Amino acid sequence: MSHKIGHREKLRIIIFEADTPMGKFFDEAVIFVIVFSVFAVMLESVADIKDQFGEALFWLEWFFTIVFTLEYIIRIYCINKPFRYIFSFFGIVDLLAILPTYLSLILSGTHILVVVRILRVLRIFRILKLTKYIAEAQTLSTALVASQRKITIFLTSILVLVVILGSTMYVIEGAENGFTSIPHSMYWAVVTLTTVGYGDVSPQTNLGKALASVVMILGYGIIAVPTGIVSAEIAKSQQNINTSTRICPDCNEDGHDRDSQFCRHCGTELD
Amino acid sequence: MSHKIGHREKLRIIIFEADTPMGKFFDEAVIFVIVFSVFAVMLESVADIKDQFGEALFWLEWFFTIVFTLEYIIRIYCINKPFRYIFSFFGIVDLLAILPTYLSLILSGTHILVVVRILRVLRIFRILKLTKYIAEAQTLSTALVASQRKITIFLTSILVLVVILGSTMYVIEGAENGFTSIPHSMYWAVVTLTTVGYGDVSPQTNLGKALASVVMILGYGIIAVPTGIVSAEIAKSQQNINTSTRICPDCNEDGHDRDSQFCRHCGTELD
Amino acid sequence: MSHKIGHREKLRIIIFEADTPMGKFFDEAVIFVIVFSVFAVMLESVADIKDQFGEALFWLEWFFTIVFTLEYIIRIYCINKPFRYIFSFFGIVDLLAILPTYLSLILSGTHILVVVRILRVLRIFRILKLTKYIAEAQTLSTALVASQRKITIFLTSILVLVVILGSTMYVIEGAENGFTSIPHSMYWAVVTLTTVGYGDVSPQTNLGKALASVVMILGYGIIAVPTGIVSAEIAKSQQNINTSTRICPDCNEDGHDRDSQFCRHCGTELD
Amino acid sequence: MSHKIGHREKLRIIIFEADTPMGKFFDEAVIFVIVFSVFAVMLESVADIKDQFGEALFWLEWFFTIVFTLEYIIRIYCINKPFRYIFSFFGIVDLLAILPTYLSLILSGTHILVVVRILRVLRIFRILKLTKYIAEAQTLSTALVASQRKITIFLTSILVLVVILGSTMYVIEGAENGFTSIPHSMYWAVVTLTTVGYGDVSPQTNLGKALASVVMILGYGIIAVPTGIVSAEIAKSQQNINTSTRICPDCNEDGHDRDSQFCRHCGTELD
Repeated sequence: MSHKIGHREKLRIIIFEADTPMGKFFDEAVIFVIVFSVFAVMLESVADIKDQFGEALFWLEWFFTIVFTLEYIIRIYCINKPFRYIFSFFGIVDLLAILPTYLSLILSGTHILVVVRILRVLRIFRILKLTKYIAEAQTLSTALVASQRKITIFLTSILVLVVILGSTMYVIEGAENGFTSIPHSMYWAVVTLTTVGYGDVSPQTNLGKALASVVMILGYGIIAVPTGIVSAEIAKSQQNINTSTRICPDCNEDGHDRDSQFCRHCGTELD
Repeated sequence: MSHKIGHREKLRIIIFEADTPMGKFFDEAVIFVIVFSVFAVMLESVADIKDQFGEALFWLEWFFTIVFTLEYIIRIYCINKPFRYIFSFFGIVDLLAILPTYLSLILSGTHILVVVRILRVLRIFRILKLTKYIAEAQTLSTALVASQRKITIFLTSILVLVVILGSTMYVIEGAENGFTSIPHSMYWAVVTLTTVGYGDVSPQTNLGKALASVVMILGYGIIAVPTGIVSAEIAKSQQNINTSTRICPDCNEDGHDRDSQFCRHCGTELD
Repeated sequence: MSHKIGHREKLRIIIFEADTPMGKFFDEAVIFVIVFSVFAVMLESVADIKDQFGEALFWLEWFFTIVFTLEYIIRIYCINKPFRYIFSFFGIVDLLAILPTYLSLILSGTHILVVVRILRVLRIFRILKLTKYIAEAQTLSTALVASQRKITIFLTSILVLVVILGSTMYVIEGAENGFTSIPHSMYWAVVTLTTVGYGDVSPQTNLGKALASVVMILGYGIIAVPTGIVSAEIAKSQQNINTSTRICPDCNEDGHDRDSQFCRHCGTELD
Repeated sequence: MSHKIGHREKLRIIIFEADTPMGKFFDEAVIFVIVFSVFAVMLESVADIKDQFGEALFWLEWFFTIVFTLEYIIRIYCINKPFRYIFSFFGIVDLLAILPTYLSLILSGTHILVVVRILRVLRIFRILKLTKYIAEAQTLSTALVASQRKITIFLTSILVLVVILGSTMYVIEGAENGFTSIPHSMYWAVVTLTTVGYGDVSPQTNLGKALASVVMILGYGIIAVPTGIVSAEIAKSQQNINTSTRICPDCNEDGHDRDSQFCRHCGTELD
């Protein structure tokens, strides 16, 4: 409300929002640095490249870490409720983006830190939150949240099916055909039901092949269920957009159908 | 109707219903025990774990069996029509959950009993029946039941296709390329049509590869059909839930939203 | 209209229709014989079974052939326009069901006749045409016919994509990595785009793997298109059922929406 | 508007349009030549065929090149704005269809030119643009364009998921099980998430198999999202086509079917 905006406030608008030209430029720069730094982590994992460019990648990693550290400090400095930021999802992701490099000074660089370092790719979603994509992202996530319970039931049924199919195949095929244990047979059941089909475990007996065929056709049909759930939800959430935006002049009720002539809540005639 | 509820009735409400705190606690405990006991059966099938913890798993299995037996007896004791329960789907599943362990005393533990024992995982659905998920589960099963006939036609067509494709590939490729018999070629056709694609049998001749390509694109298109069927049904069953069947007492307009209080056509108050 | 129905007419009703008890029984008997005879052809192709039961299967095949021949002759005898039946789709399928066995008397039993013999499985659809499934089958085929053009465009696009991807991978990977020719690389492209993924040909170079990843994600997205087309058509063809069955009293126009109050063609008030 | 059409204009109508019988014949001839010439390029890549029919294919290629060159020159001659055509998408495709053969006179025939030559298959879409399929193609592309943003978000999420899953599996499985680097593990993640499943890289450790199972079920569920997006869009774009935007001049009712002649609400004649 105050027209005088302090230095800190200006910084906050650039860093946390995306409506000003400076804010947009900052976001684009951050995306560029994130993508570039994730590529560097990837390349470091390729033996040939590490042998040749290992040192360059090492210094590049430190450069990115320092840039991200500065950004992290500025974010804490300019936000009003720093602790809320620090313990938010993106606050933790921002911290995890810089921590591994510092830790590698103390600990001898363990392998697992690679995964932590690569989590910085999640920071991309923060930018997404600020842009024109937000409405679309909301439609999608609304649809997914609305389908949550149906999907829970669906997943529970899939898991129960996988347990039963896995143990049946374990008994039919047995260890000599690669179905060495129930958990391993369940792995086969998932590979087959989802139509991935690596072929590292596959039925050898006739009975096993017959059951596997049934499982595949089942899996083929089952995929219709989540698709149907999500399709219906997306269609519905879009339909809500098709609902008229008129508001009752008397009671402010919204959500009227386009062909409604009277308020569905208080009966006042609509425009 | 009577305010005095007997001991048996109280027990029945705890065990068969889920509205009271005790009932909810009982359900959660049962789910916990089921999941734990299914895990035990799985682990027993892993050779390494059985060698090391075989005895512990043996006693654990007896512990679960006794718990489930007690539950089974109490269920029979407190229900009004015990025979109806015993011969119901869940009654049989409950019995199958305990029978194998007792049978293993008489018979030397055969392999097949593992599958029977693991069927106790189906008991999870009983709990599902009692909870807030019931409306969602009904929407799903209504949609599936409504699609039943369409899916029957679809499956019949798939089977006919599999028979024809299987025998054609058997003639084209022959036993020397792994298509040893029509049933085995049908197994290949299912693996390919459902896009699983293990790769344990795959066409070797040029003609076979050309036909296989057509089959794959067919399979790719065919998956659209069950998905379309289920999507349309779910969308319809949701629409029915969202629209009330009330009719305006004045102008007979229907299609009102469930939370509408006044007719959208003439403004008359709805019941 | 005439109450006196001749012997031939009675036979026709039993054989070609399914409304009388005798007609239903006949259809069920035919389905049973078809399924049984298809099973016999399948089993004959299994080397072990042919060695053991070869003679029994030989006589069984002759038994089925004579039964189908009798049925074919009766069909021609009792129908009004026999030539129209003989050259219809099902007339040809009926003939193909019996021809191979007779041909095997003259020719030494060639391999290809197996496929012709198994085509008798198509006769199942004739029965389907007569039953309660007909409405559902029509909804499905209406939806598929309505999507025909969209599916043609879709398939053309897929084929063009397969040609371009196949030749690109042929150049990138080359014969030494299994991509021996453009047609063979196109086979790989189909296997990958449709998410079948046998693994008999798979990219070995880094560039090839990168392109393959793009192809897979493309294929994953592309499957949405036919599914979307068919879903939308099924939903629409079901909606048409939701259209009111009222007919304008004045001009006989049908297809009015359920909430229409006046004929959309001539303006007459509807009931 | 002028009734006298010059020679050039007549040619233009035949070549660039498809409403006249000559125009249709020209289009069909062009499609025939394109398909035939693409087949020739494919066959040339098969070693056996090149050995036997190499020379014939060489002269065939020159024949097609000269035909396409003539067509290209006539197109430039008869169109009003030749430069606009030359630098349009189809102009460039037309040029690329003839360039490689001429280049092979100067350069020793490099491998990569094969891909350029096969791009002529894209010319098929030009014909598609002119036919009755155009309305259907527009419905499809409208739906895809409308889903563009949602699909961008979806693809970004998939890529982030692939990066995280790939590096996690790289740490869990390591180079000794085929997960030699993060990019290679990402290739595995794409192969698995899209349910292609070649099986050239597959998890060997128990932890890896467990994570892979989760990834597969995820991928299985994720496919529901693009399908849902596209289904909803196609359904919407079809609805828009089926409903006219006319409003009743008397009562302002909208939502009339395209073939309605009278208002469905008050019976007034529509325009």
